[in-house]
Amino acid sequence: MLSEFDLIKQYFTRSRPVRAVLGVGDDCALLAPTPGMQLAVSTDMLVEGRHFFPGADARLLGHKSLAVNLSDLAAMGAAPTAFTLSLALPAADRDWLAGFSSGLFALADAHGCELVGGDTTKGPLNICITIFGEIEPGRALRRDAARAGDDIWISGTLGDARLALAAYRDELDLEAASLGQAAMRMHAPTPRVALGRALAQDALAHAALDISDGLVGDLGHILTASKVGATLDVDALPAGPVLARQPKELRRRFTVAGGDDYELCFTAPRANREAIVAAGAQSGTAVTRVGRIDEQPGLRMVDGHGEPLDLGLHGWDHFVSG
Amino acid sequence: MLSEFDLIKQYFTRSRPVRAVLGVGDDCALLAPTPGMQLAVSTDMLVEGRHFFPGADARLLGHKSLAVNLSDLAAMGAAPTAFTLSLALPAADRDWLAGFSSGLFALADAHGCELVGGDTTKGPLNICITIFGEIEPGRALRRDAARAGDDIWISGTLGDARLALAAYRDELDLEAASLGQAAMRMHAPTPRVALGRALAQDALAHAALDISDGLVGDLGHILTASKVGATLDVDALPAGPVLARQPKELRRRFTVAGGDDYELCFTAPRANREAIVAAGAQSGTAVTRVGRIDEQPGLRMVDGHGEPLDLGLHGWDHFVSG
Repeated sequence: MLSEFDLIKQYFTRSRPVRAVLGVGDDCALLAPTPGMQLAVSTDMLVEGRHFFPGADARLLGHKSLAVNLSDLAAMGAAPTAFTLSLALPAADRDWLAGFSSGLFALADAHGCELVGGDTTKGPLNICITIFGEIEPGRALRRDAARAGDDIWISGTLGDARLALAAYRDELDLEAASLGQAAMRMHAPTPRVALGRALAQDALAHAALDISDGLVGDLGHILTASKVGATLDVDALPAGPVLARQPKELRRRFTVAGGDDYELCFTAPRANREAIVAAGAQSGTAVTRVGRIDEQPGLRMVDGHGEPLDLGLHGWDHFVSG
Repeated sequence: MLSEFDLIKQYFTRSRPVRAVLGVGDDCALLAPTPGMQLAVSTDMLVEGRHFFPGADARLLGHKSLAVNLSDLAAMGAAPTAFTLSLALPAADRDWLAGFSSGLFALADAHGCELVGGDTTKGPLNICITIFGEIEPGRALRRDAARAGDDIWISGTLGDARLALAAYRDELDLEAASLGQAAMRMHAPTPRVALGRALAQDALAHAALDISDGLVGDLGHILTASKVGATLDVDALPAGPVLARQPKELRRRFTVAGGDDYELCFTAPRANREAIVAAGAQSGTAVTRVGRIDEQPGLRMVDGHGEPLDLGLHGWDHFVSG
């Protein structure tokens, strides 16, 4: 049987650390922060049956576990540097570990983000990653920085992950090819790191966050923290390619209040419109203007003609719904 | 019912952050590293039924969850600065949350260590903390730094936590008062932060680690990493006050291969003996010399007369035993 030390050695220890002064294997990892930079820290815990299905593909799960953390750095505008991984596993299954670690490291390598430490233990499957990034002082894209008059922007597309979930739950029918395409948005989200970095480094955006619990609920956090309101053009929201082929009512519902999107929602002055489109192009990420920040509190949803819409929707909450 | 946001707000958000630039509530926390210092990072995951009993006292559990992480910083010689907390909870139980957070914050405050972020979700009870500390470059107490001729030292006492576990498991009888006393070593370990800091700041010790899985197994990590051997005087090992009243055979067994001790094991040149005793006194932590590092590989256990002892013991491993 695989011991904890063998497990870490075989699947989670690589060659000498590149960025870290000291990596996996001691009581602590040691990092040398870049002088003059602030340290951005985020942590996410993924639980089987809650954030992923029992028996989920291990490679995709390795990718997603890191992706949701990278997405938090992206939403702050920070450059990824390192992460720790804690794993509770029901058993030390070699195939699972090989798949999980390969998915994890493929994404980590793509972002130059180094595994520097962690913990493994027996227990119900639980994956907890804490991620570190660096950002220039004063440049972080905070939730409390939206200003009246700002445009509201969305990266990429929304709703395909939620559509896949609906199909898995038999809430609707989706042909196999469409489900496969939509499901990849749920299983393998793309963290918008390069776009977030551009928005922060060039001071293009004011506020930002990543949309994980549905746009309306998450945008609400910006509005509350910034003490502003917003008008959202629901029909301008960029639906994922599979959702785009669905009826309008569903399109509206799943773009406005989906889940697992991991796109950025950010606010920015009108003057930066061209620069933002350019930053999107440069980072290979579509950016779409979907509304504006108002002085008047509250969130007003309108259709393509500017007429008020009441969709009666909320974000979801881990302890209330779901 | 308590929502995730209410839960965080009520139990895990305090007044404005003191050390952090930005604390709980955004996509990331922001920390400003002290110029010239390295960042020490460690993470530990605690699982119900594995690291603590189902129904464990929430306040003590809050203490212990942070204590085991502080102990990793202590073993590196780093000064605690901040931590993140991820929690999977079967339900949002107000009494449990109030107890857990009060135990957690009492210890955090005692060490000036600030909660800067985290995650909460529904799931089998799981507590994952990632802790940050700072240390002067080149001063970290690494596992690979022991040298032949070094003394081996132990902080505090060993074995009372293991003794309590044995009593809980009905492996032996212990009267209630003794069990209560021993059990506090299991439920509320004292991280040796001040001692670890003194050993690192004043460059008194070479290698160190914290003893969580039993002295023999943990000391073995130092020997392997440092490519040295050791002679351990088993009868010099400082037994906890309850274990000290037990028969010699048990005393030997539980000091040598206990578990949950969270004491420091460190190696240091002979020339530093007086300074180490003084550092122990200054930090209110007993320090005991228990052996020496040898060039010859392997761990040799001897009794008080220097005669070889074979106790046939091993550390324990989460995936092999237990």
